[in-house]
Amino acid sequence: MTPTAILIIIGNEILSGRTEDRNIAYVAKELDIRGIKLLEVRIVPDVEEAIVNTVNWARKEATYVFTTGGIGPTHDDITPQSIAKAFGVPLLENKHARAALEAHYPPEKLNEGRLKMAKMPEGAVLIENPCGGGPTFSVENVYVLAGVPRIMQAMFDSVKDTLTPGDPLYTNTINCALPEGDIAVGLSDIQDRHTAVEIGSYPYYKEGRFGTVLVLRSKDEAAVAAASRDVQALVDLKKKEARKM
Amino acid sequence: MTPTAILIIIGNEILSGRTEDRNIAYVAKELDIRGIKLLEVRIVPDVEEAIVNTVNWARKEATYVFTTGGIGPTHDDITPQSIAKAFGVPLLENKHARAALEAHYPPEKLNEGRLKMAKMPEGAVLIENPCGGGPTFSVENVYVLAGVPRIMQAMFDSVKDTLTPGDPLYTNTINCALPEGDIAVGLSDIQDRHTAVEIGSYPYYKEGRFGTVLVLRSKDEAAVAAASRDVQALVDLKKKEARKM
Repeated sequence: MTPTAILIIIGNEILSGRTEDRNIAYVAKELDIRGIKLLEVRIVPDVEEAIVNTVNWARKEATYVFTTGGIGPTHDDITPQSIAKAFGVPLLENKHARAALEAHYPPEKLNEGRLKMAKMPEGAVLIENPCGGGPTFSVENVYVLAGVPRIMQAMFDSVKDTLTPGDPLYTNTINCALPEGDIAVGLSDIQDRHTAVEIGSYPYYKEGRFGTVLVLRSKDEAAVAAASRDVQALVDLKKKEARKM
Repeated sequence: MTPTAILIIIGNEILSGRTEDRNIAYVAKELDIRGIKLLEVRIVPDVEEAIVNTVNWARKEATYVFTTGGIGPTHDDITPQSIAKAFGVPLLENKHARAALEAHYPPEKLNEGRLKMAKMPEGAVLIENPCGGGPTFSVENVYVLAGVPRIMQAMFDSVKDTLTPGDPLYTNTINCALPEGDIAVGLSDIQDRHTAVEIGSYPYYKEGRFGTVLVLRSKDEAAVAAASRDVQALVDLKKKEARKM
């Protein structure tokens, strides 16, 4: 069975447009490399009820759930308490997390705000913060990561080898210097004949011309090769026709 | 009452990491300018059931729903048929959309694939495509936009003045050259005293140093000013303390 994932981006700053998300693309690519299917991404506000409901939906739906954001020392960082509530467990000071904070900050800097970052749901497993500072945690299949992309990526990298990978996906990309409308009908026929292959058609516009990127994906390498031959033949034919017009 | 919105990004290419989304930030900012609160963003695959369920949840939850992607001529573009299914109405050829396609494409180019783009849910209202080519549509409070950012933005711009704006939000941004842990406790007290203001704290890391951007937002301009004075005083105090250490 293909392992699956759901990504939950937590942060008012993304929903208000103040900050452009940089985490979705990174996590999506890293999961894809591992054959883990990203089912859905949800961007939710820093509101406890929204986080609790989304996490409780996601953790039943997917093999892995990743959250980003809301783990810092300030009043608007409410991810840990919301995860505890989602699992119905208390939020407790984690002694390893506290030790990591004590090792990182001089005593006069380890104030009540920063100590908040040692509080984790009961039963949490630490996720190292390779950038220094406080660790985060996972509870069952839910991995809580930082929002700052540099830290999020380092945390993801420190857990990625513990994820059970799926079968590798074979991919072939064919560039077609024609608008997708020129090849749509033929492409649909090819898709119908090659049901083991997912054929994606992605239009682009560059230097005043429309073109299409065709992406063929399957767990069956031979099926990708066979469908690719048909797609390439279609593209060649339609280019010839376009030149005649 | 504040008008609200939900944005639904439709596309396997975003979930696989092949394409980095460029639409969320644009829509989020444009809605924010108009005082329309973006409640949530969901990125879903090109799967009819996922689109139908997400649209039917969103259209009851928010004043406005925007979708991007899945409106082209190829087999993997299934947004119009999914929207028709969500509303329980048939997908019909729209004569104005067909006329727009006939005006744009020479007859030999107006094949079955491109004519698919004239099919819309019964009762759909056209959304002009200022980039040329086929228009899209809205049904009730659901606005169906292209996935290609340049076209999506032009389409959004052509409908944005028809949206009912909310009261303007007053915003003040204070830059603090200290890590957020230094100000977290004081900031929490300020948030408790200024309940009409939403105070966001966003850490950043630049040139080897942590800093924090503090964003104060409210419909009450005087409340933003009052809270800003308190935040600025806190930042000044903590900077002075940091220099002494």
